[in-house]
Amino acid sequence: MQIIKSVSSMQKTALSLKKKGRSISFVPTMGYLHEGHLRLVDIAREYGDIVVVSIFVNPTQFGPKEDLSRYPRDIKGDLSKLRKRGTDIVFMPDSDSIYPSEYQTYIEVTEISKPLCGRFRPGHFRGVATVVAKLFNIVMPDTAVFGKKDYQQYLLIRKMTEDLNMPVRIIGAETVREEDGLAMSSRNSYLSKEERGISARFADSLYIASGLYRKGKFSSPSMITRFVRDYLKKFRGIRVQYVDILNASNLKPVSDFSQDMVLAAAVFVGKTRLIDNRLLKARCQ
Amino acid sequence: MQIIKSVSSMQKTALSLKKKGRSISFVPTMGYLHEGHLRLVDIAREYGDIVVVSIFVNPTQFGPKEDLSRYPRDIKGDLSKLRKRGTDIVFMPDSDSIYPSEYQTYIEVTEISKPLCGRFRPGHFRGVATVVAKLFNIVMPDTAVFGKKDYQQYLLIRKMTEDLNMPVRIIGAETVREEDGLAMSSRNSYLSKEERGISARFADSLYIASGLYRKGKFSSPSMITRFVRDYLKKFRGIRVQYVDILNASNLKPVSDFSQDMVLAAAVFVGKTRLIDNRLLKARCQ
Repeated sequence: MQIIKSVSSMQKTALSLKKKGRSISFVPTMGYLHEGHLRLVDIAREYGDIVVVSIFVNPTQFGPKEDLSRYPRDIKGDLSKLRKRGTDIVFMPDSDSIYPSEYQTYIEVTEISKPLCGRFRPGHFRGVATVVAKLFNIVMPDTAVFGKKDYQQYLLIRKMTEDLNMPVRIIGAETVREEDGLAMSSRNSYLSKEERGISARFADSLYIASGLYRKGKFSSPSMITRFVRDYLKKFRGIRVQYVDILNASNLKPVSDFSQDMVLAAAVFVGKTRLIDNRLLKARCQ
Repeated sequence: MQIIKSVSSMQKTALSLKKKGRSISFVPTMGYLHEGHLRLVDIAREYGDIVVVSIFVNPTQFGPKEDLSRYPRDIKGDLSKLRKRGTDIVFMPDSDSIYPSEYQTYIEVTEISKPLCGRFRPGHFRGVATVVAKLFNIVMPDTAVFGKKDYQQYLLIRKMTEDLNMPVRIIGAETVREEDGLAMSSRNSYLSKEERGISARFADSLYIASGLYRKGKFSSPSMITRFVRDYLKKFRGIRVQYVDILNASNLKPVSDFSQDMVLAAAVFVGKTRLIDNRLLKARCQ
């Protein structure tokens, strides 16, 4: 496994792989890797000859009051996991080489970034789109794999890639969950034992709602979000930030069940912010 | 000379050229080509095996009250000129394929786009950055050539390319002028005969100012811009939009002559907006 820290050597390595006709599959991460990330690595291997994983905690996607400084890190553990999983190249740039002084170029995906997390994390998706575009230009992947736990991010990257004609195929991977249903996330490490227990109820709320939807128990999208809110009210340790149900492709509002939908929510458990979502298939009215 | 209209065939052609190890030089234009453009084609040939010229009147860089609909076009003439000049590929996409419905991704270069034309053409540079990034992803050039007549645009593209780690070398080409000094521009075709006559005075104003600067006749940057304004006041047909003198690399304000500078101006002659600039070398204080 090759570890590359400099932007220019990563770019040179990518160019020389391309010239040899090798395809590159890419998994961008912020490190502190869990099984969800490693599943992305497995998928990446199916799509390309060379698997590149980046580890970069991207400052431009954190708000001023968010958890950039305390975001969990474990480079040694990450490298060991990636090595075992058969990663070819780990790209670990430092922040100054990604954002040198006088840095000033940003990418906005104006519509998809507005609802859901976009309402509560101004600038977050601008930071995500910008760093992913940069990483694409540095790593030059044919394919890149993103987890659908961050569903809005996945759609945003897909839209940016399409809109800017980037020659990269975007693959979305299913959310990997703990045994009790909680979606895996590096931020789960913030949770105390008690908080960790109650967090599974958050996953339950969306899972149960999607099951009831499939059984035809709801007659409108707003009934579903009301169900989730009411369900979560029972747990004093959980504070809802948003629960919403939107078109699964463009995140526009839905008023009936005629389109595929995403049921997405963000909650706080203590100081820890968790997000999760479930896809709901369109059904005949 | 190959003419390509579809985005996907241009991208496929570019990929297959790359695979054969051929380098691509690119000149993006809005058509209605003059000798200034053709000089860019000559320069492009020096840098790459294959010269690609795009012709696309980009709607997102025009303001709502600007001249998009009456922007001059002459595809037949353009193709004939490009053929004679030894262009390999002309890429002529239509507007719907570049900006399909639900298009929503834009690139901002926040600082360089603020002064000069940025003050008077809100959104213009966002449109320029966005379309150039798209064209780069479609044409996949190793080198791209831009005229320094649009000096702010040239710096903006250079900065975007650097900030987003695009693997493209940006070359700036000297402004090509008519015999009386007027910078060549497709928009010169808007000028009546009388307006065309007086337009040369605009070019004179910057040329004379730069000459006096070299001779040490000015003691501060503001003296230079005042000289240009006073000079242009004598011509009733010319209305100044801005005259400014800024750092030649980052367009920040300058208060003395210790850095390389650009003296840049925009004027209206009748309804036609003209821009021009001269570079002034730093000198010891």
